[in-house]
Amino acid sequence: MSLSTLKQQVLDANLALPRHHLVTFTWGNVSAIDRASGLVAIKPSGVEYDGMTVEDIVVLELESGRIVEGSKKPSSDTATHLALYRAFTDIGGIVHTHSRHATIWSQAGQDLPAWGTTHADYFYGTIPCTRLMTEQEIVNQYEHNTGEVIIETFRSRGISPTAIPAVLVNAHGPFAWGKDAENAVHNAVVLEEIAYMGIFSRQLTPGIKDMPQDLLDKHFLRKHGANAYYGQ
Amino acid sequence: MSLSTLKQQVLDANLALPRHHLVTFTWGNVSAIDRASGLVAIKPSGVEYDGMTVEDIVVLELESGRIVEGSKKPSSDTATHLALYRAFTDIGGIVHTHSRHATIWSQAGQDLPAWGTTHADYFYGTIPCTRLMTEQEIVNQYEHNTGEVIIETFRSRGISPTAIPAVLVNAHGPFAWGKDAENAVHNAVVLEEIAYMGIFSRQLTPGIKDMPQDLLDKHFLRKHGANAYYGQ
Amino acid sequence: MSLSTLKQQVLDANLALPRHHLVTFTWGNVSAIDRASGLVAIKPSGVEYDGMTVEDIVVLELESGRIVEGSKKPSSDTATHLALYRAFTDIGGIVHTHSRHATIWSQAGQDLPAWGTTHADYFYGTIPCTRLMTEQEIVNQYEHNTGEVIIETFRSRGISPTAIPAVLVNAHGPFAWGKDAENAVHNAVVLEEIAYMGIFSRQLTPGIKDMPQDLLDKHFLRKHGANAYYGQ
Amino acid sequence: MSLSTLKQQVLDANLALPRHHLVTFTWGNVSAIDRASGLVAIKPSGVEYDGMTVEDIVVLELESGRIVEGSKKPSSDTATHLALYRAFTDIGGIVHTHSRHATIWSQAGQDLPAWGTTHADYFYGTIPCTRLMTEQEIVNQYEHNTGEVIIETFRSRGISPTAIPAVLVNAHGPFAWGKDAENAVHNAVVLEEIAYMGIFSRQLTPGIKDMPQDLLDKHFLRKHGANAYYGQ
Repeated sequence: MSLSTLKQQVLDANLALPRHHLVTFTWGNVSAIDRASGLVAIKPSGVEYDGMTVEDIVVLELESGRIVEGSKKPSSDTATHLALYRAFTDIGGIVHTHSRHATIWSQAGQDLPAWGTTHADYFYGTIPCTRLMTEQEIVNQYEHNTGEVIIETFRSRGISPTAIPAVLVNAHGPFAWGKDAENAVHNAVVLEEIAYMGIFSRQLTPGIKDMPQDLLDKHFLRKHGANAYYGQ
Repeated sequence: MSLSTLKQQVLDANLALPRHHLVTFTWGNVSAIDRASGLVAIKPSGVEYDGMTVEDIVVLELESGRIVEGSKKPSSDTATHLALYRAFTDIGGIVHTHSRHATIWSQAGQDLPAWGTTHADYFYGTIPCTRLMTEQEIVNQYEHNTGEVIIETFRSRGISPTAIPAVLVNAHGPFAWGKDAENAVHNAVVLEEIAYMGIFSRQLTPGIKDMPQDLLDKHFLRKHGANAYYGQ
Repeated sequence: MSLSTLKQQVLDANLALPRHHLVTFTWGNVSAIDRASGLVAIKPSGVEYDGMTVEDIVVLELESGRIVEGSKKPSSDTATHLALYRAFTDIGGIVHTHSRHATIWSQAGQDLPAWGTTHADYFYGTIPCTRLMTEQEIVNQYEHNTGEVIIETFRSRGISPTAIPAVLVNAHGPFAWGKDAENAVHNAVVLEEIAYMGIFSRQLTPGIKDMPQDLLDKHFLRKHGANAYYGQ
Repeated sequence: MSLSTLKQQVLDANLALPRHHLVTFTWGNVSAIDRASGLVAIKPSGVEYDGMTVEDIVVLELESGRIVEGSKKPSSDTATHLALYRAFTDIGGIVHTHSRHATIWSQAGQDLPAWGTTHADYFYGTIPCTRLMTEQEIVNQYEHNTGEVIIETFRSRGISPTAIPAVLVNAHGPFAWGKDAENAVHNAVVLEEIAYMGIFSRQLTPGIKDMPQDLLDKHFLRKHGANAYYGQ
C-alpha cells in the first residue's frame, strides 16, 4: 500500500469518529499500519476533526517510533498504538475513543460479557477490562505501559486479539482494532452499541448469564472465518 | 400487487429503518409478501442502506425459498422470515432489527408487559420473549429454527400474532410484523419506544403491575377492529 | 382573537411537537381556546405533522362540542381537552403527548416531585399522577372521563392548575397546559426535561427529598406573578 | 482586550451552548471578564439564542455591578457571576447551564468523584456539590448568595477553582469556568459528559472507588501546567 493511501485511510477513519458520535472535541484517535513497510500513520495530537486534512496525519516507524512524515506532534497515545501493533501482529488499524458507554464499563472496571447476538456477531466472547496500572507503570512511559497492560490482559487470559478486537482500559476507556483503520472504527461503533445495551440488560436482569456458547459460535462464525456466509 | 410495487415497498421500508434510528450499519432487514403470488421480497444480505436501490431487493418463493429475482444474496435471516409467513398467514410484512431497547429486553430474556396506553394502542398485551434455543436448533438450520421458536412461543402461549405483532428473540433481538412492510416498520418503531419506556418505568416502580385490562381493551380496540374510531 | 389566528397558533404549536422531540408518529395534539367566542381549535385525529396545514385544524364549540369548522375528525382526545377547558377556566392552551420520560412517570404511576430549580422555574410543586380509572370510567366516555379524573386530582389535592400546569395520567402519559398553545408546548418541553432528570436524580439518591420550600418559592416567583424579574 | 472582542467572545460562547446540547430554551448564560478594565460581558436575561447578536450582550463593571453598555437586562444570574469573578481571580469566563446530567447530580445533592481519565484530563479531583442554601440566603440577594455558597464550598474544602473549574449547585445545576468564555464552555461540555458517565459507572459498580491518585495526576498534568505535553 502506498503511504498516501495509508494516510488517507487514517484520515477517513478519524473523520468517521464524530460522524458515529464516538468522540467529543478531539478525544479519539485512529491509526493504521502498513506491515510491509513497517510504517504507522496516526492522528496528530489535540487537533480538531473539523478541517483536518491528510497533511495533518503523522507517519512513524513501528520499531523506532521515529517520525518520518508530518510536521505535527502525533497523538499522545501513539506509544500505546505502537505497543499493540508490535504485539498483535495480525491487526492493521487501531482506534481509541472515550465513547460514553464503553467508557462507563471502563470506569466501572468491569468486563463486558457476551449477552446477545449483536455482541457475538463481532466479538467472540467477553471483552476484557484491564487491571489498574501500578504507580510505576503510570509515572514512567505511561502510554507505552497502557499498551503493555492491554497485551498482558490478552496473554494472561488467553484471549486472541483477532477474536476479541477491543479492550476496556480500567478507569480510562476503550481501544478497538481491526484489519485496517475502517474496520477498527467499525468495531468501536459496535463496542459502544453493546456497551449501551449491556448496562440496561444487566439492570433488567441482575445476575444475567452469558449467552449460550452454541449461539455465540453460530453468530461469530457466520460472519468470520472460513465458513462465513453473511454478506455478499 | 405487481412485483415491482412489492419490491418498492420493501425498499422504502428498509430505508425507513435508519431514518427511525432502528439500525446501526446493516443490522436490520424488512421483507413483504404478496399472498396472491406467494412471492416474498427481502433486503439483500449485508448491503449498506445508503445507495440501496430496488434492484438490490431479492424475491423468493414462499414455499420453496427459491430466488426468482435479484442477483444478490438475500438477508441471512431470510429463513426466519419465510417460516413466519408460512405460520402467521395474516401478516404481510416483517422487520428484524437490533434496535437498542428492544434488544435490551431480548438480551435480558424478559417479556415486555403492557404498562401503558402507548403499548396498548398497538399491542394487545405482553410482548413475549422466546425461550433460548437448543444446541440442535442452533447448529442445524439456525435461521429457520429462529422462526420456529417464535411460532412455538405464540402457539404455546395462545398469543395471536395479529394482536401482538412483535416478539423478542432471547439473547438476540426483536422481530415485528404487520399487514405490510410499512406497517411492520411502524410496529418496530413503537416496540422500540415502549421498550425504552419499560426499562425506566420498572426502575421507578419495581414490581410494577400490568395496566388494567379495561384500559388495554379500550386503547387497542379504539385503533383496531370493527369499532375503531382513531384517525380519519 | 380572530379564528384564523387561533387556528394558526394551534397549527404552529402542533408542528413544534416533533421539533422538540416530544412525539413519535402522530402521538400528540395541541389545542387552544378563544375564551371570548368559546371556540376551541384542535389538531385532527391521526394526521401526520409533516404536511399539516391550517385547513386541517378543527374548530369546536366549548360547551356543545359541536364542530363549526374543518372537514376532518378532531383528535380522539378532544373530549379530554374540552373537559379541562371547562374546569380550568384560566388556561388557554393544552397539549397531550407520549413524550418518553413524562410517560415513564405516568406508567410508573408516580408523582414527579420538585427536586430542583428547573422544575421550580415552571411548576410550583409536585406534578401529580392521577389515580387509575375505573372500569365504568373507561368503558363509557373514556376521553371525557380522562379529563374528569385530571380535574378530580387537582381539586381533591387542592392543586391550582395555574401553579402546576401539567399532570401525569396514570398508565397513559402527560397533559400540559398554559395561557395559550405555545405556552402549553413550552410547559410540555419542561415537563419532559424534568421527568428525565428526575428518574436519574432519584437513582443517584434513593429517598431524595423535595427541594426546600424557600428555593421553590424563589424560583417560581422570580418567573411568575407580580414580582417576577426574569426576562426582559 | 477591546470591549468589542470581549462581547464577541461572550456571544460566540453563548451560541455554542445549544450547539453542544447544553441548553433548553434560554436556560444558560455565559460571561467573560476583561481583568485589565474590570468589565464583565454577559448574556441578556431570557433572550432566545436564535437571533442573538453582539448588541444584546450586556457589559457591567465588576465591582459596582453597574451596566455600562447594552440596553437589555443582564442575565438574572449576573450577581452569581460577579461574586465568582471577585473571589476566583484567575478565571476569565463563566458558564451556567441546566445541562441534563450535571443537573441530575446537583438535584441528587452529590459530589461527582473522579472515576476515569476523561474526568482527570480536565478536573483534578472530585467536583463538589454545594450545601443547600439557608432561608436567609435565598430570600435576600439569592443570586449573589449562590455565588457565595460556591466560594464557601471551595474555600472550606480547600479546593482550587483552577484545578476544579466547575461546581454543582445543590438542587439547582452546574456552573463551570475557565480562562475565557470559550474555555468555560469547553469545561461545561466535559462536565456534562462525565456527569452522564458517572451515573452509569456507579450503577454498574455500586461503591465504585475514586481513580488512583497517580492516574489522576498523570492525566491532569499531561494537559495542564508546566509539564503538559498534550496537543500541538
